[in-house]
Amino acid sequence: MKRILVLNPNSSANITESMDRALDVLRLPGNPEIVTATLSEGPPGIETQAHVEGVVIPTARYFAENPADAYVIGCFSDPGLHLARETVKKPVLGIAESAFLTALGLGHRFGIVAIKKGSIGRHMRNVRQLGLESRLAGDRPLDIGVTDVLGDNAVIERIVEVGTQLRDIDGADVLILGCASMGGFRAEIEDRLGLPVVDPTQAAVMRAISLVTLGYARAA
Amino acid sequence: MKRILVLNPNSSANITESMDRALDVLRLPGNPEIVTATLSEGPPGIETQAHVEGVVIPTARYFAENPADAYVIGCFSDPGLHLARETVKKPVLGIAESAFLTALGLGHRFGIVAIKKGSIGRHMRNVRQLGLESRLAGDRPLDIGVTDVLGDNAVIERIVEVGTQLRDIDGADVLILGCASMGGFRAEIEDRLGLPVVDPTQAAVMRAISLVTLGYARAA
Amino acid sequence: MKRILVLNPNSSANITESMDRALDVLRLPGNPEIVTATLSEGPPGIETQAHVEGVVIPTARYFAENPADAYVIGCFSDPGLHLARETVKKPVLGIAESAFLTALGLGHRFGIVAIKKGSIGRHMRNVRQLGLESRLAGDRPLDIGVTDVLGDNAVIERIVEVGTQLRDIDGADVLILGCASMGGFRAEIEDRLGLPVVDPTQAAVMRAISLVTLGYARAA
Amino acid sequence: MKRILVLNPNSSANITESMDRALDVLRLPGNPEIVTATLSEGPPGIETQAHVEGVVIPTARYFAENPADAYVIGCFSDPGLHLARETVKKPVLGIAESAFLTALGLGHRFGIVAIKKGSIGRHMRNVRQLGLESRLAGDRPLDIGVTDVLGDNAVIERIVEVGTQLRDIDGADVLILGCASMGGFRAEIEDRLGLPVVDPTQAAVMRAISLVTLGYARAA
Amino acid sequence: MKRILVLNPNSSANITESMDRALDVLRLPGNPEIVTATLSEGPPGIETQAHVEGVVIPTARYFAENPADAYVIGCFSDPGLHLARETVKKPVLGIAESAFLTALGLGHRFGIVAIKKGSIGRHMRNVRQLGLESRLAGDRPLDIGVTDVLGDNAVIERIVEVGTQLRDIDGADVLILGCASMGGFRAEIEDRLGLPVVDPTQAAVMRAISLVTLGYARAA
Amino acid sequence: MKRILVLNPNSSANITESMDRALDVLRLPGNPEIVTATLSEGPPGIETQAHVEGVVIPTARYFAENPADAYVIGCFSDPGLHLARETVKKPVLGIAESAFLTALGLGHRFGIVAIKKGSIGRHMRNVRQLGLESRLAGDRPLDIGVTDVLGDNAVIERIVEVGTQLRDIDGADVLILGCASMGGFRAEIEDRLGLPVVDPTQAAVMRAISLVTLGYARAA
Repeated sequence: MKRILVLNPNSSANITESMDRALDVLRLPGNPEIVTATLSEGPPGIETQAHVEGVVIPTARYFAENPADAYVIGCFSDPGLHLARETVKKPVLGIAESAFLTALGLGHRFGIVAIKKGSIGRHMRNVRQLGLESRLAGDRPLDIGVTDVLGDNAVIERIVEVGTQLRDIDGADVLILGCASMGGFRAEIEDRLGLPVVDPTQAAVMRAISLVTLGYARAA
Repeated sequence: MKRILVLNPNSSANITESMDRALDVLRLPGNPEIVTATLSEGPPGIETQAHVEGVVIPTARYFAENPADAYVIGCFSDPGLHLARETVKKPVLGIAESAFLTALGLGHRFGIVAIKKGSIGRHMRNVRQLGLESRLAGDRPLDIGVTDVLGDNAVIERIVEVGTQLRDIDGADVLILGCASMGGFRAEIEDRLGLPVVDPTQAAVMRAISLVTLGYARAA
Repeated sequence: MKRILVLNPNSSANITESMDRALDVLRLPGNPEIVTATLSEGPPGIETQAHVEGVVIPTARYFAENPADAYVIGCFSDPGLHLARETVKKPVLGIAESAFLTALGLGHRFGIVAIKKGSIGRHMRNVRQLGLESRLAGDRPLDIGVTDVLGDNAVIERIVEVGTQLRDIDGADVLILGCASMGGFRAEIEDRLGLPVVDPTQAAVMRAISLVTLGYARAA
Repeated sequence: MKRILVLNPNSSANITESMDRALDVLRLPGNPEIVTATLSEGPPGIETQAHVEGVVIPTARYFAENPADAYVIGCFSDPGLHLARETVKKPVLGIAESAFLTALGLGHRFGIVAIKKGSIGRHMRNVRQLGLESRLAGDRPLDIGVTDVLGDNAVIERIVEVGTQLRDIDGADVLILGCASMGGFRAEIEDRLGLPVVDPTQAAVMRAISLVTLGYARAA
Repeated sequence: MKRILVLNPNSSANITESMDRALDVLRLPGNPEIVTATLSEGPPGIETQAHVEGVVIPTARYFAENPADAYVIGCFSDPGLHLARETVKKPVLGIAESAFLTALGLGHRFGIVAIKKGSIGRHMRNVRQLGLESRLAGDRPLDIGVTDVLGDNAVIERIVEVGTQLRDIDGADVLILGCASMGGFRAEIEDRLGLPVVDPTQAAVMRAISLVTLGYARAA
Repeated sequence: MKRILVLNPNSSANITESMDRALDVLRLPGNPEIVTATLSEGPPGIETQAHVEGVVIPTARYFAENPADAYVIGCFSDPGLHLARETVKKPVLGIAESAFLTALGLGHRFGIVAIKKGSIGRHMRNVRQLGLESRLAGDRPLDIGVTDVLGDNAVIERIVEVGTQLRDIDGADVLILGCASMGGFRAEIEDRLGLPVVDPTQAAVMRAISLVTLGYARAA
C-alpha cells in the first residue's frame, strides 16, 4: 500500500493532531495511507525566519529516513521544500504552493489569511516565485500566535473579520487559510463568508494523492 | 456513491473509449464512480471554432439532464465551460484549464503539444485568461487530425519530435498533450523525453475527484 | 457602397434604436453605410452566460446570411466573436474589445461601468485574454437590468456615482460604458466626471470604418 | 470643415510626399481635411536621439502656430508627443503608439520592422511605457537609412526578409512598418507575407479621424 | 582625480545648494569629486512638460562642454537622459531611475511622493518603461510648488501625511521623494514614518560613484 | 571606521582570495574597511540545494558573531539572506540580488552566465521573487565545477562562448557572472563581448558601501 507522509515541522503535537483530523476526509479505501508526524526537534510554532530555516535540514532528513511515496511539508512557509526535493526521489509538496494551485481552480483571485504580519513577506516571495502574482487579491494578518490557532471561537471570529476584508476590499473570491492547522474551521468560514476556503494541508495531501495515483515521479 | 461524469463532446465513441481507458488508474474503491459518455450530436472531432461553439449548449444540456457530483468536459478547447458552470450547481472542469493547473505543480514552464496549428490561438486565449502566460514555454502543433490521434505509432514519433522542440528550444520542463484522448501515450512519451507529461483528461478527472472529496461545491 | 452591419444580439428593438442613434455621428458621406439590426431570436437582454451562449450561433449565422464589409456584435460580452471571425471572411468586431482598444488611446488606465456584478467575471476574462490587465483600473457594477438602461435619469445618476468611484478610488482616467446602448449618455457623463467616456458601440463601428477604409481583410 | 495636420518632423519633402500619398485612401467626403507638412528646420531623417530631441520643441511650436482639430506627429519615434499634448488642447497622436494600438486589433502579437538597430531601444521604451510588452513578438532592423526607404525594390525585398523572420521566428501575426513613409509598400508586403501590415502614418491619421468624428477632446 | 558633475536643470541656485548639502555625506577622500551646477537657462522649477523638454538640449550641451567622469541630471523627470547618453561617452544617470533602482534594494514595494499631480503621468511612464511596475505601491502628490519645497516645516508635515497614505493604504515599505532637493528632510521623515526614504539625488550620485569606481563606461 | 564583512560561505580559501582581489578596486580611503572571510564549515563549493541549505544557519551565525556595519553573502545562491536579515540589525546583501539590481542600471535585459545547469532553477526563483523577470534575457550554464572556475584560460573561452549566445540569441545587453569568484575575468570578457559585465561580489560590496555611506539601517 502506498503511503503519504505529512510532517508537521513544529513540535506541537496538538497541531499535528488538528492537521490529522482535517485529513480524515481523504482516508479512503483506494487512497494511499496518510501518516502524520511531528518534528520533535522543531520549535512549538514556526513564526520567524529562524524557525523556518531551523527546520529545513531536519525536515529533509526526516523524509530521507522515513520512506514514503510522497511527502508533505505541513507548514505554510514551505520550509525545506527545495532541499527535500533534491534529497528524496519522490514528490515533495509544500502546503503553501499547494494551496495557491488549488485556489487557482476555485476562484479568480485568492486572498490569504496570514497568522502574523511578519510572514506576509515570505508569502509574497513565494507567490511571486511561482509567477502567480496576478491572481493574488491580498494577504492580511490575523496577528495572533500560531499556537493560539487551535479551538478558539475568537479565532474564527477574527478569521471571518479578516476574510471579509479580503473579499470586500481586496476582491478575493477564494480564501486560503495561511496555517497548517486551521482545516477544522473550513466549513464554518465557508458558510459565513460564502466563499470557498482552502485548507493548505488538505490541499497538499490531496495533491500528493493525485500525483501518486497518476504515477508522477516528482513534483516541481 | 458519488459520480463524476466525463463527456466527450465529439461523437467518436472510440475516442471516448480511449479516454475511458486512461481513467482506469483513477477507478479506486473510495473514489467517486467515473462515467464517460459521448455526445452523439457532436462532430467526429472538434477542430474548428464552429465545432467548439456547436457543442456548447448540448454539453451544458447533457450535464443538466445527467445528474452527477462533478462534470468534466473532455475536449481541450473547454467548450461550454462557463455555461455549464452557470447551469449545474456542481463543479464543472475543463480539461485544458485542469492540465494547466496540474502542469504548474510539475515544472516551471509548460509546453503544449497541439493537434492543429489552428487551435493555438484558442489555447493562448485560455492561458492568458487564466493569468498563466509567464509559465508557458510554448505551444507547437502536430498538424494531424483529431481522429488520427488514436493508436498510431507515427503519432507517438511525431509527439516526441514536437515535445523535443518544446523541451530543447522553448525550455519546457513539463508537457501537456493538447487533446483528450492521448493519455495512453503518456508513459512512453515520459520515458523518451524524460519529462512529466500531463494527460488533460486524467488531470481533470483527478481534480474532480479532489473537489468532490474535499467537498467544494463549485469550481471556477 | 461599403456597408457595416451592427447586430444587436438581443431582441429589444428599442435598444437597437438607441444604439442606432448613437451611431448617427458616424454616418458621413464617405463612410460605409451603417446598418443596425435586431436578432429577433435573442433574449430581451443578455445578462447571463446562457444568454451569451444562446446567441453565438445565431449571430454568426445572421452575419453569414447578410453580406457586409464589416460586422459589429453589439453586446458587451462579445458573443460569437471567434465563431463569426471563422465564419465570415470579413472584419468582425466585438464592442467590448473595441472599447478596450479605444480606451488605451484616451487614458492610462480604464474603468468599466458594468451593468451587473455577474458580468464582471466575463469582462475580466476578456481583458486578461487581450493582455491588457495592466491598463485596467477597475470594474464596478451599476446593478440594474440591461433593459432598464434606457432613458432614465436615475441611470445617469447611478453611472456618475459608479464612475466617480472608478475615477477617485480605482484611478481610472477614462471610462467605458459596459453596455451597447448607453451611447446617448456619453456627453453628460463626460461633462460631469471630466473624463473621456467610451461608448463601446461607437468605438466598434468607428474601428470597423477604419478597417474597411484602410483595406484590412480581417480583424483579430 | 475639420482639419487634421500631419507634420513630418524631418525636412525631406519627398518623405512627406510619400506619407501624403499613403493618406489618399483616407481623404473621403465626410472626413476632416488631411494636410501634411514638412518641418523645414528638422534633419533630413530622424535616426538618432539628437535628431529626436531636436524636433520636440519645433514640432509643438508648429502645432501651436497651425490650428487644426487633431495633430499627427509623422515620425516613428513619436518626438514631442507629450509636449504637444500639453501645448495644444486638441488630440495629438504619435504614429508609433497609433501603430501599436492598431496592431492590437489585427493580430495577437505584433512584430516591428525597424529601420536601424539603434532605434530599437526607443521602440522598447515606448512599448513598455504603454504596458503592451506581452503583445510584442519582436523588433528587427532593416539596417538601412531613413532616406533610403523610398521607392527602392531592394527595400521591399529587405522588408520581406525581416518580416519573414518576425513571422516565423518571433511568432508575429501582424507587422508594423517602423517608419513614417513606407505606406506605399503595404499592399505588396501583405501579399507576400500573408499578414496584415500596419503603416503607422495611416494608423495615426485614421485614429485622428476617429477621435475628431467621435468628439474626443484629447488623446492620451 | 575623478569628477562627477551634478546639474540642476532648473535655474534656482538655492535648490542647487540644497542638493549640494545633501551630497556632503558622499564627499569622501577616495571618492570622485562631486560638483554641482545650475543650468542658468533653465526655468525656476521644472513642473510642466514644456519645462522638461526645454532643458533637454541645454542639459546635454552642458554635459558636452563640461568634462566629467559621470553625469547626474538633478531633476525627477530625468530630462535629457537618453540624449545625454548619446552625447557624452560616460555614464549619465537620471535621479528618478536611480531612485527606483535604489528603492528596489530597500523594500518590496516603493511609494513615490510627487510634488504635483501633473507629474504622476511622467513618473508612471518612467516606471513602466523600466519594467518595474510590479514593484510600485503608489504615487501621491503633495500638490505644492517645486520652489516651495525648501526649508518649510509645513512641507515636512505634508510629506509625512502623504507618506503615511503611501505606507498604510498603498502598502509601500520604502518611500521615494519625487524631487531633487528634499534630501535634507530624509532623516526626519524616516524617523517619523519608520520607513527607509530615498533622496533621488543622493541615490543617483551614489550610483555614479559606484559606476566610476567599478569602471563601467556607460549606464543604460 | 566602518566595516563591511564579506563571507564566502564555501570553505575554499583560494576562492575567497580571488573574491578579495576583485574588491581591491573598492578599498578607497573614505570607504568602509572591506574584510573577506571563509566559512570553514562550508563545502568546497556550493553547487547543490544541500550545499545551499547547509550554510544558511552558519552564515547567519557567523554574521551574528562578527560585528560589522554591513554584510555580504558571497555566493550566487544568496544562502541565508532572509535569515541573516532577521538576525543582524544591519544591511545584509546577497550577491545575486545585488547583481540583478546593478545590471538593471547597465542595460535593458540581463543575461546570466550560470556555472551549472542545476542552479538555473534557483536563479529563476530568485529573479521571479524580485519581480524582475521582464528584464531577464536568459540564463545559460557553463557546465563546469565551482572550484574549476579559477585561473583557467579555458574558463574564459567558455564564458565568452556562453556570453555570445546570451548576447546574440537571447538579446542580453549586460551580462552577470553567476559566481562569486569570477571578478578577475571581468575586463577581458567586457573587451571581447563589448558588453558591460557584472561581477556579483563587486556589485554587492559596492551596494553595501552605498547603504553604509547613505546611512540606511537595513536592506530588503
